[in-house]
Amino acid sequence: MSSVKYKLTIAYDGGNYVGWQTQKSGPGVQQKIEEALGRLFPTPLVLHSSSRTDTGVHAIGMVAHVEIPAAELRMTDHKLSLAINAHLPPDIRIFKAQRCPADFHARFQATGKQYRYFVWNHGPHHPLLLRQSWHVPQPLAIQPMREAARTLLGRHDFRAFAANRNWPFHTTVRTLRRLDIRRQGPLLTFVIEGDGFLYRMCRGLVGTLVQTGMGRFEPAEIPKMLASRDRRLAGMSAPAHGLVLWKVFYGPTGAAEVPAGDLDE
Amino acid sequence: MSSVKYKLTIAYDGGNYVGWQTQKSGPGVQQKIEEALGRLFPTPLVLHSSSRTDTGVHAIGMVAHVEIPAAELRMTDHKLSLAINAHLPPDIRIFKAQRCPADFHARFQATGKQYRYFVWNHGPHHPLLLRQSWHVPQPLAIQPMREAARTLLGRHDFRAFAANRNWPFHTTVRTLRRLDIRRQGPLLTFVIEGDGFLYRMCRGLVGTLVQTGMGRFEPAEIPKMLASRDRRLAGMSAPAHGLVLWKVFYGPTGAAEVPAGDLDE
Repeated sequence: MSSVKYKLTIAYDGGNYVGWQTQKSGPGVQQKIEEALGRLFPTPLVLHSSSRTDTGVHAIGMVAHVEIPAAELRMTDHKLSLAINAHLPPDIRIFKAQRCPADFHARFQATGKQYRYFVWNHGPHHPLLLRQSWHVPQPLAIQPMREAARTLLGRHDFRAFAANRNWPFHTTVRTLRRLDIRRQGPLLTFVIEGDGFLYRMCRGLVGTLVQTGMGRFEPAEIPKMLASRDRRLAGMSAPAHGLVLWKVFYGPTGAAEVPAGDLDE
Repeated sequence: MSSVKYKLTIAYDGGNYVGWQTQKSGPGVQQKIEEALGRLFPTPLVLHSSSRTDTGVHAIGMVAHVEIPAAELRMTDHKLSLAINAHLPPDIRIFKAQRCPADFHARFQATGKQYRYFVWNHGPHHPLLLRQSWHVPQPLAIQPMREAARTLLGRHDFRAFAANRNWPFHTTVRTLRRLDIRRQGPLLTFVIEGDGFLYRMCRGLVGTLVQTGMGRFEPAEIPKMLASRDRRLAGMSAPAHGLVLWKVFYGPTGAAEVPAGDLDE
């Protein structure tokens, strides 16, 4: 039975879900979308995503693929995203559904990812950003944070910045291509891009940089943290709700694949 | 009995309130802050605001003044905002409390206001902007919208763009200083600045401009709408939840008074 493969670009407010994957404590975003697909197609379908986001983490450019039996597919590509969205809660949206080659794989072919992390750096928190930014009321010194960020760029073993897991088979070496810290008034945006990320690595990087901005660490300490490969020597993990999976890159050069939801380009 | 006057800069998520002013249908933001003041000071205090926002409209730079009896004021200015915030729900925040001259008046001395209106212009809505942007899925032509916006700049009678009210004593002439339409991917931001605004005028302007982008109106029709002074000839009113009172200007030249919450400068 022939099938058609679709690449889905997905946005969600992670605040209402236990993460991408379903857990004992509640349903994940993946399950919600698979249930919506179940309302449209008789054959149970499985989503394969580029990444798994943690409880509370948001996305505007998550990518997943799904194979739909050709015989059951009785709609145009545009109608497909409308139809799935019609069966989803408003805090999960398919931004785009595109037919893709049969050998496309959302996870195996991803050549990079961009996350963004939002910090509201002002005494009181911003009432409109409560659910999507980390409130840091203490003054932050941006220059040391940017210096520290520069030492993180490139190919390193990032084990010191990721949550403790068993890594028996997988390498903990990753390449960080970009770590910009933008300031617009009290709003800090961390733009974090790399070929891949360890579990909770983005949050470990941001937490450590923010603590550098508070004076808790010197920029010169960062290379020592990297070298230690010891989670206890790096800084805190920033809270989940400030983090957004912004886009996923595909293609041999890691060239930008700009999703419809991108606010920047 | 001598009193100390404070200028408060206030941010709130308007989605949970009937507006600035209390109505039969529920409490307003003003009442919530007055109740918080009631927990701190024995004398009942009244807030005087620069503006009244409608049900659902947000603010990050609302300004209000309040007079506090000097004898009851036993804290520093910084502590004052912390103390008020401690008695407010998290969706209302005092961003700043500053002592101001005894003759300062938040409404009478305001020399201008800036509103921002957010439109998410993409097929599906953005899960993280559901409560703070207007979802317009149809394609919008930006150039005609910008042309139309230019014809609105300057001093005009804006009655055609405001909600019908009795205007027996007050002029409906206002000066619109700025009406920029910024595009960042699917996100449109309308930056609307003037010496003052009629009831629902911002929403009438944005609704008409968006309908111009849809091809419903030609830019050349806008001056005719203005001249008609007839609400029925202008376009629709954009929904409240896309609108944010961004800042209020004081001073003889209308020079920018940048509140702490400003994301731009």
